[in-house]
Amino acid sequence: MEPITSLQNPRIKQLVKLREARERKKSGLTRIDGARELIRAMQADVVPETIYVCEARVRDGEPREALATAIARGVVRQDITEAVYEKVRYGERDEGLCAVSSWRPRELDTLELPAPAYVLVIEGVEKPGNLGAILRTADATGVGAVVLADPACEAANPNVIRASMGTLFTQPVAQATTDEVLRWLDVRGVTAIITRPQADLDYTDVDLTGPVAIVLGAEHDGLTAAWDASGPVAVTIPMAGYSDSLNLAAATAVLGFEVVRQRRLR
Amino acid sequence: MEPITSLQNPRIKQLVKLREARERKKSGLTRIDGARELIRAMQADVVPETIYVCEARVRDGEPREALATAIARGVVRQDITEAVYEKVRYGERDEGLCAVSSWRPRELDTLELPAPAYVLVIEGVEKPGNLGAILRTADATGVGAVVLADPACEAANPNVIRASMGTLFTQPVAQATTDEVLRWLDVRGVTAIITRPQADLDYTDVDLTGPVAIVLGAEHDGLTAAWDASGPVAVTIPMAGYSDSLNLAAATAVLGFEVVRQRRLR
Repeated sequence: MEPITSLQNPRIKQLVKLREARERKKSGLTRIDGARELIRAMQADVVPETIYVCEARVRDGEPREALATAIARGVVRQDITEAVYEKVRYGERDEGLCAVSSWRPRELDTLELPAPAYVLVIEGVEKPGNLGAILRTADATGVGAVVLADPACEAANPNVIRASMGTLFTQPVAQATTDEVLRWLDVRGVTAIITRPQADLDYTDVDLTGPVAIVLGAEHDGLTAAWDASGPVAVTIPMAGYSDSLNLAAATAVLGFEVVRQRRLR
Repeated sequence: MEPITSLQNPRIKQLVKLREARERKKSGLTRIDGARELIRAMQADVVPETIYVCEARVRDGEPREALATAIARGVVRQDITEAVYEKVRYGERDEGLCAVSSWRPRELDTLELPAPAYVLVIEGVEKPGNLGAILRTADATGVGAVVLADPACEAANPNVIRASMGTLFTQPVAQATTDEVLRWLDVRGVTAIITRPQADLDYTDVDLTGPVAIVLGAEHDGLTAAWDASGPVAVTIPMAGYSDSLNLAAATAVLGFEVVRQRRLR
């Protein structure tokens, strides 16, 4: 197939537009620009529709492997020239590949939780870098689902995909309002574990081996008051220094790996 | 004192230049633009030389408190006009304050470690956001020192100060080459705990109550080979999913809080 040479090509125009949240939301598509992220997506059966390839820029190793896997999985290959690639590539990515894939967060009622449930709920997350790091932790700790309550940043943002190293695709990620999440946890008998600086209970002293949701709030404002009213278990992460809080992704990792530690001991 | 109205004022020129690493390194000065960061710095006796104040933009609450504390601590106040403030303010900061303070990382041989030592060593860190999150974890877990081995990002970078919420100033932060750090740990009898995916030992199964340094490597490349040769204890953080690594700041939090957990149980 001939490489696309023109930035006026409608498909190239859409590829550029997919840098914007509005276009992603409208189309239900997103871009996967990194080779590793693309490999992870396909491992988890998220198979892009199209892969745009700048042949001269595809290096050996992961990029070449990602391309070969994509072709083997039936992804449509569309070549583009270097001039076009320069205009469409995302941020610092320079692996010669831009894949376009449909992806949307799931609805809560489509999630099936293993027993005992272990869910991460993140409310109001703002920073793609934090959300990406949280998704890596979620993948590593084997969550049943990641639930985004009223997120201020879009899960399909390519910066989230990148910071997650592709683990956005390897696990169930749902999105809902805080009210919906509260109801969903309640109906399923999952206990919300929230962090509060003034809580009496250290996070290592609470039993996390039953059905639990680790619930964390936004970077600056923390959890909304709705959570306190839901009868959660409030725990504290001990803070020995001057600061009264951790980075959001760091706090998620501390709590998530405490779940793992306790369940290993059972 | 009259507000400075001109961007040509040499002090304003320097304030702008302090956004650049070169100027910070040359002068040994950095900028503290956030009210919370400024409060933390002064709590830890890092007292700026000068505070530039755009009176009309200083909101009540933390910014006003930071300013009052600075004046009480003898910081020289220099007013600036809103037009000047617009040009000198950093990123999204809009609290009407820019403080200039001397700050440099410490030399290894000036550090005094409590017994048993608990040190965080981060080699080759690249991202200011990660380093800032690591400093918050270090503060919260009560490290004896944070040691930056051959960092690729500057500790005095205002983005580090911001992401650290000012905890850059609340604890000893040193910088050295990896070789120097290895020698320093060796002389002091501090065991390096490094993470390796293939290690046999789970991080929760190693005794972290003795003198230990938790050692983590750069975001993409991990630790250099020099660490393997130093006779460290290699541990693994169990990864249940597709990914073989955590975000650097998340991994630091998991290991740092395991040190805290074990030491609480002693």
